[in-house]
Amino acid sequence: MSAVSTGRLIGVGTGPGDPELLTVKAVKAIGSADVLAWFAKEGRRGNGRGIVEGMVRESVIELPLYYPVTTEIHRAQPEYVDQVTGFYEASTTAIAGHLDAGRTVVVLSEGDPLFYGSYMHLHVRLAKRYAADVIPGVTAMSGCWSQAGLPIVQGDDVLSVLPGTMDEDQLVRRLNDTEAAVIMKVGRNLPKIRRALAETGRINDAIYVERGTMANTRMMPLASKADDDAPYFSIVLVPGWKARP
Amino acid sequence: MSAVSTGRLIGVGTGPGDPELLTVKAVKAIGSADVLAWFAKEGRRGNGRGIVEGMVRESVIELPLYYPVTTEIHRAQPEYVDQVTGFYEASTTAIAGHLDAGRTVVVLSEGDPLFYGSYMHLHVRLAKRYAADVIPGVTAMSGCWSQAGLPIVQGDDVLSVLPGTMDEDQLVRRLNDTEAAVIMKVGRNLPKIRRALAETGRINDAIYVERGTMANTRMMPLASKADDDAPYFSIVLVPGWKARP
Repeated sequence: MSAVSTGRLIGVGTGPGDPELLTVKAVKAIGSADVLAWFAKEGRRGNGRGIVEGMVRESVIELPLYYPVTTEIHRAQPEYVDQVTGFYEASTTAIAGHLDAGRTVVVLSEGDPLFYGSYMHLHVRLAKRYAADVIPGVTAMSGCWSQAGLPIVQGDDVLSVLPGTMDEDQLVRRLNDTEAAVIMKVGRNLPKIRRALAETGRINDAIYVERGTMANTRMMPLASKADDDAPYFSIVLVPGWKARP
Repeated sequence: MSAVSTGRLIGVGTGPGDPELLTVKAVKAIGSADVLAWFAKEGRRGNGRGIVEGMVRESVIELPLYYPVTTEIHRAQPEYVDQVTGFYEASTTAIAGHLDAGRTVVVLSEGDPLFYGSYMHLHVRLAKRYAADVIPGVTAMSGCWSQAGLPIVQGDDVLSVLPGTMDEDQLVRRLNDTEAAVIMKVGRNLPKIRRALAETGRINDAIYVERGTMANTRMMPLASKADDDAPYFSIVLVPGWKARP
């Protein structure tokens, strides 16, 4: 197999949810794909794949990458790490087969590929062996603060992007040390996040957004949001720009 | 004047620089604009305006918003604050006139409008009086890490977005307290940023990018970058994801 005949890998950001928030470059890449790879839970269609419906060639080869079922294993367990690593290795092998056959493989990534995206696990394994491009996307957080019309940072503000999985005392400490914050992975962490925001005096500025820019989005002041039904990927926005007029 | 006849304000993110990195929604909004407003230095054409060349209707009314010349006044001086506030007030009045006449006014904003964008100053003044939408854009930082093929954050990483104007001891403290960092407004702050990265043992991971995704972009390990010619809007990326394979 000559180097010339190998294909091209493209990691494509599909943005926060609204299909019109894909970039022009992303739409072109998706339309040119020989193989379209996308992550999903077993037997489901991934959100990324749903977003790009209608942008894909009829002849495209679909390559679903189904996450292993690990819900009963803790992330720190070797068994979890082995299963997840095995999954990314197998996905890499499947994609490499298509690249060796000279095909253009587009891997969909919700939001922006290199910002908390699963695509990163494939990129680090494949980009040294094959031509690889990354097309950035609008992040979920940008989609959320734009939908809310909420200026998030201005001037010399610091922005901290924090996982909601963090301990409460860490959340408090970091909220006290930043002009603006975006708290990701809210879900069942919401009561803890609420306490941390109350303790730091920021609860009345915080905005809760779920499924930002999607048809079924919900958005409200965090103070009005019930604790019991937040999806895992909902987001809490804590704006900076204290000097705003 | 009836409420029905008033126009619509749309803040549009033009992305990091490559015109193909505008979203589909942004291109449509720009093509539908009656009035196209854009920020620039006096007598110049703004970067945002350059990016959207060819997407605009021939009949469009151009509304350049020229920043006041404040280079010899310190930001903390009342004179600076007065001039800048006056500029945003005058820009608001000009746009309101077009909205009152029923026109759709698109305001271009490089990157993402509510993420350090000048558009925010107009949004907070106009969005309570007129229908206003914000179309998010790919941020400059996403453009930079995608061009570099550099995974920036994964899993439970914290990302800190830091202004390069910050004091050195603050930079050191924050770099020691985050998995990943994006340092903005590099320019003449580069020697200080370099010292902070060296002190925290992160200089060999740091990537320097100027004019990310533009035709004349430059990108290199920060360790190889000379101190003396970094543009103000260049960016330093310090990746997280320590467990990467």
